[in-house]
Amino acid sequence: MSTKIRIAITGYGNLGRGAEAAITQSPDLELVAIVTRRDPATVRPADPATPVYRLDDVADLRGTVDVMLCCGGSKEDLPVQGPLLASMFNIVDSYDTHAKIPDYFASVDAPARANGTTAVISTGWDPGLFSLNRLMGEAILPEGVTYTFWGRGLSQGHSDAVRRVPGVAAGVQYTIPSPEALERAGSGERPELTTREKHTRHCYVVLAEGADADTVEQAIITMPDYFVDYDTKVSFIDADTLAADHDAMPHGGFVIRSASTADGHNHTMQFSLELEHNPAFTASVLVAYARAAHRMNQAGAVGANTPFDVAPGLLSPRSPEDLRRDLL
Amino acid sequence: MSTKIRIAITGYGNLGRGAEAAITQSPDLELVAIVTRRDPATVRPADPATPVYRLDDVADLRGTVDVMLCCGGSKEDLPVQGPLLASMFNIVDSYDTHAKIPDYFASVDAPARANGTTAVISTGWDPGLFSLNRLMGEAILPEGVTYTFWGRGLSQGHSDAVRRVPGVAAGVQYTIPSPEALERAGSGERPELTTREKHTRHCYVVLAEGADADTVEQAIITMPDYFVDYDTKVSFIDADTLAADHDAMPHGGFVIRSASTADGHNHTMQFSLELEHNPAFTASVLVAYARAAHRMNQAGAVGANTPFDVAPGLLSPRSPEDLRRDLL
Repeated sequence: MSTKIRIAITGYGNLGRGAEAAITQSPDLELVAIVTRRDPATVRPADPATPVYRLDDVADLRGTVDVMLCCGGSKEDLPVQGPLLASMFNIVDSYDTHAKIPDYFASVDAPARANGTTAVISTGWDPGLFSLNRLMGEAILPEGVTYTFWGRGLSQGHSDAVRRVPGVAAGVQYTIPSPEALERAGSGERPELTTREKHTRHCYVVLAEGADADTVEQAIITMPDYFVDYDTKVSFIDADTLAADHDAMPHGGFVIRSASTADGHNHTMQFSLELEHNPAFTASVLVAYARAAHRMNQAGAVGANTPFDVAPGLLSPRSPEDLRRDLL
Repeated sequence: MSTKIRIAITGYGNLGRGAEAAITQSPDLELVAIVTRRDPATVRPADPATPVYRLDDVADLRGTVDVMLCCGGSKEDLPVQGPLLASMFNIVDSYDTHAKIPDYFASVDAPARANGTTAVISTGWDPGLFSLNRLMGEAILPEGVTYTFWGRGLSQGHSDAVRRVPGVAAGVQYTIPSPEALERAGSGERPELTTREKHTRHCYVVLAEGADADTVEQAIITMPDYFVDYDTKVSFIDADTLAADHDAMPHGGFVIRSASTADGHNHTMQFSLELEHNPAFTASVLVAYARAAHRMNQAGAVGANTPFDVAPGLLSPRSPEDLRRDLL
């Protein structure tokens, strides 16, 4: 009998494929199923032996899956799938609509508590690792300023939002930090920087046939939560250019805490990521949190959690003794 | 009745004074006692109203202290004080002799379990925040290399070790990362770097009257755990030069994870600190973990823990709801 943690993936897009790849790097985990809204016959797992199920049939997997990785989008998929899947499985997701996290947390917490499952929502890197660094910075150095910068990089969530705009056939969105703002944040001067001063957003869009460019541009740049608070540039390109110039998915960013202790000394804490492929990295974070979700459920911690609630040691396959000896 | 968490400090050196200052930045904490091996009449707390107790009388404080911050040195103080204080109080310390952490953990765990207290050992920044970043990097990206660089900075632990060498009247030790090694670690090439290649150590020493410089130098550079694995330079200076040129206590460093996901993409995670005053920052970390130790004890988590066992949200004075809304 296998003692590996049995993982399933719902949603087989970039993130789901990244999770499938990440699981191969963790000998203590095994992928037991892929779940899709599509016709399973159209899904081609990297390992052809991996069974593919319809989302409508996901209840059949109860008892055979230790943790479900919810790899759908935050805008339309997760608000439905998260609560549904949390009623049947331990789940991990990367829900990333910051403004709606409290509502989403509550919507997952109730079915998880009712069914004795453990959910860890909003893992990934932001929310996720960046959130942890914001929290640690503020908890350790209470008197200071925290700056978060994203990019330069292609944002999955924002590209997804662009692609859902009527009239958009395809598109990507790059987030670009202001070099001046980044330098000032790390200097110790603690400037006040507005959202608009810190970054610009640049969308490359392929119009659907017959769509009106001005209408599409307005719909993008006025979109709440995603674009309205930024200077957003929209460039219309053809499908060939999109495929040729925009198929990589780099990302990254910085969390900087600039603060003083009571004796007047200045301190700077900085966390940064430089990622060649955002979904591959985000999926790797989800997979590490899957390990934690399984262990937390075994320890009786049912309900919704976030990375704030997860002891870091639970992310590692290694024993507490090994971690203390080798990494502390 | 106060609902603040009642903190006491054992050891009133640089770290203890840093903790005293850090507590003033946390409205949910109050300093209720300083404990010293010295004559209490010789200790002058920043707030003269803070009572000072002899370590011999520390048992009198039982029931009046929620968390004891153990601010002694790792070489001689903590191996005795940690187990003693853990038998009476929840404790937090910054034990930093990496090679002996498993033994120290066990020596604290037993009295803590026997007496229902909670200990969080080896907080601070290394071990502590750097350890967390080493663990997260490896757990999230299993196939790669982790680099830790320290400095340029004055190391408390290593300076303490130098000062305990017979014939040393006073002294400080600077850790200096190799700029070439640092650049290569962040480049993605993943070089193999030996301990000796990555840093040098530089000690500035004031000799005791009649001490032999060669004997002192040999005792330092051959010291196990602290110096034997490094190229260490020892400079002998007079007391006036030491006071004039070496009274600041800057430090910092880098933890870099350079790794690939299974799809072949490269990713770099980096955490760095730039600290004007090492004890002030380290003390701020201890104070945040004191909050966690108190909460973990209330939740029944008795025994020894390390930062690997502490959910990050426990470090913050803010409610889980606030943290999710504002920082996730």
